[in-house]
Amino acid sequence: MSTTRDRIVNASTELFSRHGYAGTGIKAILAASEAPFGSLYHFFPGGKEALCAEAIRAGGRTYRVLVEDFFGEGVDVVAATRLFFEGAAAMIEATDFADACPIATVALEVSSVSEPMREAAAEAFDSWLAVLRQRFGEAGIDADRASELAIELFCALEGAFLLSRATRDKTPILVAGRAATGSVEAAVRSAVPRTG
Amino acid sequence: MSTTRDRIVNASTELFSRHGYAGTGIKAILAASEAPFGSLYHFFPGGKEALCAEAIRAGGRTYRVLVEDFFGEGVDVVAATRLFFEGAAAMIEATDFADACPIATVALEVSSVSEPMREAAAEAFDSWLAVLRQRFGEAGIDADRASELAIELFCALEGAFLLSRATRDKTPILVAGRAATGSVEAAVRSAVPRTG
Repeated sequence: MSTTRDRIVNASTELFSRHGYAGTGIKAILAASEAPFGSLYHFFPGGKEALCAEAIRAGGRTYRVLVEDFFGEGVDVVAATRLFFEGAAAMIEATDFADACPIATVALEVSSVSEPMREAAAEAFDSWLAVLRQRFGEAGIDADRASELAIELFCALEGAFLLSRATRDKTPILVAGRAATGSVEAAVRSAVPRTG
Repeated sequence: MSTTRDRIVNASTELFSRHGYAGTGIKAILAASEAPFGSLYHFFPGGKEALCAEAIRAGGRTYRVLVEDFFGEGVDVVAATRLFFEGAAAMIEATDFADACPIATVALEVSSVSEPMREAAAEAFDSWLAVLRQRFGEAGIDADRASELAIELFCALEGAFLLSRATRDKTPILVAGRAATGSVEAAVRSAVPRTG
């Protein structure tokens, strides 16, 4: 059974990701987590800002596990990239274009106004990039190119989430996915020269 | 001299883009536009939601002009793509990582809760994509590929804006820009076979 603190954080991650920081009230968080009023400030003496930073970290961890599910050890990184974008397209359609990145909405909203929240978002993003860098490196791609490729893939997906949500169309995710898959394929090919 | 309505819309575009929809209060809009309270509901009987939709359209028009500045008629689309991303990187650094896309923050926040605002964002995004589709088509790239390439470039830039703002580093925009430039170059090359 989940603890009160876990319930507060999980409810916050979902509410902040869907409605943004300013759009999510303390009352809504307490109602969704079935927690008494005092508990929020008991667990998060820093209030809403500290809670949101923790919600960003929790969303980051959940999504990193998802990235690791697709990009597991020894995986074919070309196939993984293709499946990752296809999975994202299926997920966003299944949730009526609501569930995309758990952090992007809040990150854009708070980057210029709250250092604790901005830093939590930056760390979460880098933890995903780290998984990609690692796998691309293991596929024989040199470290600089692996790092660039991870950034390219991240940007393609996040930009596609934005366009897909606004247009209610999964096409941008599939288009971005084909481009990302092509980039990964080219990098793998030049890393491991084929014989014959 | 700008009209009261123009001042309200311009102030709203900036405030919504920086603080999001829920994070921008009517009072802040009136203060920034030096407008009396009644004027907002006089010009926007639909209230904050109608005003925000108009602010999204205004931001969309401003940014379309910017896209057209880089992607003018008869332009070399490869060089334009490179310069566009380099310009975006310079701009975001010059504004201390605050000014990026005028619509993305609000679009993510409202896509699942307000059809008028979501549609305004979708139309703005498509007006930018239309400029790119047009130029890529004029460069000899076939219509389907031109459309995909426009989406790829959009997603790369929007995703890079997000990562750059969160990490306070313009590197993602430069990395995404090199990848986008490479894609445009490849498309132009296969559209116009070189002789010899």
